[in-house]
Amino acid sequence: MKLNRLIVLVAVVGLLAGTASTLQAKPIIHDAEYQVLVKQHGEKWTEEDAELTDKLAALEKKFGKKPNIIHLMWDDSGYGDVGSPLLTRIHGIDTPNIAQMAEEGLSFTRMYTEPSCTPTRATALTGRQPIRTGMYQVIFPVHGIGLPKEEVTIAEILSENGYNTAFFGKAHQGDIEESYLHNQGFDVALFSTYNQFASQFFNETGEISRMTIGYTEDQWDQHGYAIDKNFRYKGEEIVWAIEGKKGEKGKRWNKDLSVEEQLRFTDETHARALQYIRDYANDEKPFYLDYWFHGPNFVEKFTERGREGNSARDNAFGDFVEHMDEMVAEVIAEVKKAGIEENTLIILMADNGPMKEIFPDEAFQAMFSGGKGSFLEGGIRVPAFAWWPGTIEANSVAGDIIHVSDLFTTFARLGGGTDDIPRDRVIDGIDQTSLLLNGDGHSRRDYVHVYAGPSYAATVKQQYKRHWMSSRPGLVGKSFFDLYKDPREEKGMMGQFLWAWEPFDAIKMRHEAQMQKYENTPPRKTEVYTGLSNYTPADD
Amino acid sequence: MKLNRLIVLVAVVGLLAGTASTLQAKPIIHDAEYQVLVKQHGEKWTEEDAELTDKLAALEKKFGKKPNIIHLMWDDSGYGDVGSPLLTRIHGIDTPNIAQMAEEGLSFTRMYTEPSCTPTRATALTGRQPIRTGMYQVIFPVHGIGLPKEEVTIAEILSENGYNTAFFGKAHQGDIEESYLHNQGFDVALFSTYNQFASQFFNETGEISRMTIGYTEDQWDQHGYAIDKNFRYKGEEIVWAIEGKKGEKGKRWNKDLSVEEQLRFTDETHARALQYIRDYANDEKPFYLDYWFHGPNFVEKFTERGREGNSARDNAFGDFVEHMDEMVAEVIAEVKKAGIEENTLIILMADNGPMKEIFPDEAFQAMFSGGKGSFLEGGIRVPAFAWWPGTIEANSVAGDIIHVSDLFTTFARLGGGTDDIPRDRVIDGIDQTSLLLNGDGHSRRDYVHVYAGPSYAATVKQQYKRHWMSSRPGLVGKSFFDLYKDPREEKGMMGQFLWAWEPFDAIKMRHEAQMQKYENTPPRKTEVYTGLSNYTPADD
Repeated sequence: MKLNRLIVLVAVVGLLAGTASTLQAKPIIHDAEYQVLVKQHGEKWTEEDAELTDKLAALEKKFGKKPNIIHLMWDDSGYGDVGSPLLTRIHGIDTPNIAQMAEEGLSFTRMYTEPSCTPTRATALTGRQPIRTGMYQVIFPVHGIGLPKEEVTIAEILSENGYNTAFFGKAHQGDIEESYLHNQGFDVALFSTYNQFASQFFNETGEISRMTIGYTEDQWDQHGYAIDKNFRYKGEEIVWAIEGKKGEKGKRWNKDLSVEEQLRFTDETHARALQYIRDYANDEKPFYLDYWFHGPNFVEKFTERGREGNSARDNAFGDFVEHMDEMVAEVIAEVKKAGIEENTLIILMADNGPMKEIFPDEAFQAMFSGGKGSFLEGGIRVPAFAWWPGTIEANSVAGDIIHVSDLFTTFARLGGGTDDIPRDRVIDGIDQTSLLLNGDGHSRRDYVHVYAGPSYAATVKQQYKRHWMSSRPGLVGKSFFDLYKDPREEKGMMGQFLWAWEPFDAIKMRHEAQMQKYENTPPRKTEVYTGLSNYTPADD
Repeated sequence: MKLNRLIVLVAVVGLLAGTASTLQAKPIIHDAEYQVLVKQHGEKWTEEDAELTDKLAALEKKFGKKPNIIHLMWDDSGYGDVGSPLLTRIHGIDTPNIAQMAEEGLSFTRMYTEPSCTPTRATALTGRQPIRTGMYQVIFPVHGIGLPKEEVTIAEILSENGYNTAFFGKAHQGDIEESYLHNQGFDVALFSTYNQFASQFFNETGEISRMTIGYTEDQWDQHGYAIDKNFRYKGEEIVWAIEGKKGEKGKRWNKDLSVEEQLRFTDETHARALQYIRDYANDEKPFYLDYWFHGPNFVEKFTERGREGNSARDNAFGDFVEHMDEMVAEVIAEVKKAGIEENTLIILMADNGPMKEIFPDEAFQAMFSGGKGSFLEGGIRVPAFAWWPGTIEANSVAGDIIHVSDLFTTFARLGGGTDDIPRDRVIDGIDQTSLLLNGDGHSRRDYVHVYAGPSYAATVKQQYKRHWMSSRPGLVGKSFFDLYKDPREEKGMMGQFLWAWEPFDAIKMRHEAQMQKYENTPPRKTEVYTGLSNYTPADD
């Protein structure tokens, strides 16, 4: 982390993130497209920001500290998989606790993420889209890739600003030392380095399941064409869960690769998240808690944890979602029990769309097309809710666009850390405090740059979208969509959109031109599993 | 109308519609499938009914009369086109008043209709699916078809039981005298005989629009192949709106075919509906009001009536829906103003799915596949709400199956008219009073026979569905669907459903066998436009 202390020293007023302010604080370098909006609305937003600053100051005075922030995130769900029964009952799912949370808070209808786990999570932590941080790949064991240390995380910023910070659950930020969460700003962390792969590729006893390919010796060398003897499963030890404290070496936490061990991790991270709330609720410092559920979401075994009789949809994913609904309820109950609900913001969201291609009998896409991994709305538009009784309006719904990167910038502001957001790189995250506090219609973003891995795949602007990948070049290209009329992106249009060719081109070109000036960090590839007190790669 | 007065005389207890009761009242002849459910739940339902009867009696005592019933219906909308912004904002639509109504009442997630206007409306009026009443065709001018006089309508039943009855708006029940709404039990009626065709085929001045085919002379006889000189547009006068009072001749109401005239009808029926509520709110008799919005829903002109600035979805249909939202608000305001809200049930619903095939740039299907005319869920599963403050639970959602025919039987019960439901024919409508009053999980139906015109097209049972039309016979047939996992009916399955072959066959066979005993009424074709005091067909 490189903090911009010099800039902070000359800043007179701190809480003016990203506006075209003329104050001494050097503005955050946002995406070129944001500058277009600032030119049109900067003055109004500056005024609005002054009011918001007053409001936040009043809250701080009332509660004696800045707000606690809890970011809850889970895997692979489509818009409508959780929340209002108007949506969930279409699928035979029932999530009464999340529905209740939604009624007490704000529901987003256009929360955009990246198309898969590692990228979305890196974006939440850094406020930067993964193309900029080298985190655009989904990390699998054993990869030797992870979140670079130069990236500044929200945990680092809030730590600097007097927050207790903790991470529990699925991180999926890689298997290299610098990526460990306790090395990325969190005071304490119990996190997974990868996704829940083991739940799908290994059975309960840690044996390789029959749905895998090329894992076992009898699948090797069966023919003379297998010239390269190293292109095969190597049977390395896998450290998929690590525990650590800031400034200390980490510890390998997982014993083996079994599903049982995955479930033990699910339970342990849940218990620690609840305990953390209990322990720090009344601390003199506020806390920042990332609790990202680690649900082995397609494990039949998980059905044992489904809510009895409530779900009409009897499969592993439905049961996972309903189990998660109860976990969310326990988090909220803990917050209420501690009496801190009026000074605690909770964001609950999925990390990307459903895995409908991989598990077609389990996952589905209710409203859009495409699932996890896709640049269609179904891959990147997720269920999301914000809850902060007394501050966020109850039973409200936002039609605005918001992107997961915005959480970074917004959390930084709420925690008084705006000035610690680096000014030497592009920050995609926009401060959305106004959307949270003023509600529907107060987003400061009307665009999303949609990446599929390292490729620029689509541009969302207002209700319109242009696909860049899979488009046919030239006049036959019909890659323009009106998402209001056609949320499933089935009816590509072009004649109706002639006016939009140049403006869409301009959005992409501005964005890419800016990258010439502020270079992207390439993927950080280095040695795996160093920095652990109870394990070294040499053990293998 | 043939009332079963003899049966009524011997009936001791009247309010036991459709249960396997041993009381003197001969039970209603429901579909064979319902008998299967009665065998399993009859005893419980009889107990439940006794409690409901007590509850209704208590309400009647409190308010001094039976409840007023208002049935609001509109055209061609998909689940999610109106109501909660969680759904409508996906499409840039905003219907705050219907959302408010939903919050004050019950939202249905599985309200099934017939696939198009005439059939659904005939079903609501008679409680019988259109295959039984000959009303399975969409009636167009000049057709000479309409609702047969032998059919017993809810207006006839409630009139017999001391209700004031009125019909305003789009009836679409045909152009023959016996089908006129004032000849079908309504005290007063101002209704359309057809749909809003003129809005699509004629322009504002009544001239034929350029989107029509074969209407003008220059399109005739251009080649020697046109042997039959009568197969062409005849330019008949069209009586598309009629006004009438029970027992009197009707009057042609429309002056011409112009869109202006259609809008005048929209406004006039709205004004009369509101006036009717004012006039009869405090009458000693309760009232039954069918107010079925006549919105020329794809007329650009209608955009003038869209709510200014509120809709992000700028097209004629969006504007129509938002205008309708305001009309609904005015109805509810009138009810509240009259102080009768606690003794008034309002049902609000669409009549079938969106016209997405005909107007692909206007209409869409949010959640399901298929639109108006289709036997897929998108054709027959509509937005629907029930509102009755103090009696129907606020902010509730039903995952149960309900069919538009059920309204007939339920309204009859609420109005004390169960014994007047004919016992000489099959009544598809199930009494759903328990669903309304006891809420989610209290439906008495878990099946729908889905017809496309006169053809048996699909069977819905629980969350499962089997397609009969478009299926391939034999083992390659993959026409079984799990609607929870696959609401869009895209992933036909068969191997997974082997158990379901025979049970689905049995449902269809039982249903069809019953038709041998209780014959269907064929379509009633006769002379058009008789029974009008100011017009005779000879005028043409």
